[in-house]
Amino acid sequence: MNIALDMMGGDFAPLEAVKGVQLFYSQSQQQVNLILIGDEQKINPLLSEYKIASENIKVVHAAQVIEMHEHPTKALKEKQQSSIAIGFHLLSTGKVDAFISAGNTGAMMVGALFSIKAIEGVLRPTIGGYLPKENGNLSLLVDVGLNSDCKPENLNQFAVLGSLFAKHILNTPDPRVALVNLGEEEGKGNLLTQSAYSFLKENHQINFVGNAEGRDLLKDKADVYVCDGFTGNVILKFAESIYDIVQNRKIEDEHFNRFNFEIYGGVPVLGVNKPVIIGHGISHAKAFDNMIKMAKKMLDENLIDKMRSSFAG
Amino acid sequence: MNIALDMMGGDFAPLEAVKGVQLFYSQSQQQVNLILIGDEQKINPLLSEYKIASENIKVVHAAQVIEMHEHPTKALKEKQQSSIAIGFHLLSTGKVDAFISAGNTGAMMVGALFSIKAIEGVLRPTIGGYLPKENGNLSLLVDVGLNSDCKPENLNQFAVLGSLFAKHILNTPDPRVALVNLGEEEGKGNLLTQSAYSFLKENHQINFVGNAEGRDLLKDKADVYVCDGFTGNVILKFAESIYDIVQNRKIEDEHFNRFNFEIYGGVPVLGVNKPVIIGHGISHAKAFDNMIKMAKKMLDENLIDKMRSSFAG
Repeated sequence: MNIALDMMGGDFAPLEAVKGVQLFYSQSQQQVNLILIGDEQKINPLLSEYKIASENIKVVHAAQVIEMHEHPTKALKEKQQSSIAIGFHLLSTGKVDAFISAGNTGAMMVGALFSIKAIEGVLRPTIGGYLPKENGNLSLLVDVGLNSDCKPENLNQFAVLGSLFAKHILNTPDPRVALVNLGEEEGKGNLLTQSAYSFLKENHQINFVGNAEGRDLLKDKADVYVCDGFTGNVILKFAESIYDIVQNRKIEDEHFNRFNFEIYGGVPVLGVNKPVIIGHGISHAKAFDNMIKMAKKMLDENLIDKMRSSFAG
Repeated sequence: MNIALDMMGGDFAPLEAVKGVQLFYSQSQQQVNLILIGDEQKINPLLSEYKIASENIKVVHAAQVIEMHEHPTKALKEKQQSSIAIGFHLLSTGKVDAFISAGNTGAMMVGALFSIKAIEGVLRPTIGGYLPKENGNLSLLVDVGLNSDCKPENLNQFAVLGSLFAKHILNTPDPRVALVNLGEEEGKGNLLTQSAYSFLKENHQINFVGNAEGRDLLKDKADVYVCDGFTGNVILKFAESIYDIVQNRKIEDEHFNRFNFEIYGGVPVLGVNKPVIIGHGISHAKAFDNMIKMAKKMLDENLIDKMRSSFAG
């Protein structure tokens, strides 16, 4: 199993990525080869400093970095030697099995869509985010920004992709799917959700439990909440800002600490042909460790094959 | 000044409405005539019990009540003797100057749209909600559910209506308007917000400060946040649910207490020809008192005339 990690992505690169790698290997004899992509002049001394010497690690030099503010498509095209471009090249040519980066989110999404492409039958891949429940579990919110305008069929597919992720990666048996909406009753909604409801209701691949209002999203009404990427993006960032307030107010609470989204590592791009995980810009060692574990689990569980089967024929 | 109050609306009607009336009059010699609409068999004994005997109060009997779960249009049509139907009748015939209810929200919206109608030039009236800022002020979020599908022109008009309300009722001088969006830069967004941005930027009636992401909504980035009613409804209900969690977690914090939306009284229907205020279903005395004060202020400030001027020619 070969997992590629962009060492240059995120606000604390490459130091926190290196520390994440150290953390990952410190926990057990992991049967994972890590391909560390980035500036070897910066990475190698850190690997020495942190005493990471494993035959399972290989550094692939990348002479360029796509910065956070750069235009995704333009940057990917012009910076062929960037760590993200090299990562997707390795992934699309089969030299690695999964790719992780906490770098430019847009470039990661464009790279995922155009280099490894959507699973056959998937109209639009999606990107999910987590919402913490008071019972300690996480629910998955899809889409959180990849698709700002959606058709009902898109939401229906997000539901399938999200359910498979929740079941096999978040360990939620028979995940309940709810449609984010402005009322509980069937028939409520905007044009998109009214129509999407019918699709979801008829979809026997998922456990659809109806509409969820804004007030339900942090509760245990469902395990997968489906919406268009505009709505999901606003919800997720709103939820993230709650942690800022909690910190400002010096409130110490176990549940509200779980609104610190950094701890979850990264979010998966769902519906593409290989595992791709996008990390938060402020990722620290723990987040990188979690992302490597998530990539490993996506490979262990053959998640992509399960998704392909769902959309086959 | 004649303000009509639906005594039968809300979970604790008519008791809390009566206590709200008592609270309102207890504060000063208010130059307001209140028209209390509802079941006089229930209201009169309570007025006696709470020693509310004022020549400024008149009870108008309503033999019916529109329940919370009823279909708005159907109920308004079939229950002509309901407190909400009578309220709108009094309002549209000029017998009262403003109407307040914590009853069936849908029926209130339908009544406002069809009995007193939109201000000339207003394509779609809107309904606003409040979001608390850490600095103690409130920002206004429009729309929060009246218009689930919007055109860019609608958002542009919500911005004008919201600005006038923020300036004259929330006492925010030169209110900053932001567009709720999934990125900060101009050009980001879904089809609706990309187009709405151009309208807002060219609109000299407002102080447009650009896009606001989900993470900005509880901060002091703007005073009026504009979005379609689907997004706004999800945001508002999500924000409301935070207070539930804060209570569950037994967190006592001055700022988070302000997520108890009940304390704000009600939200205005903006863009119709008379002041109409819709209360929360769980309104208590303080909320009714606040709603009466808001209606009074809307009349004192001639808010509707100012809105008419904005949309004239």
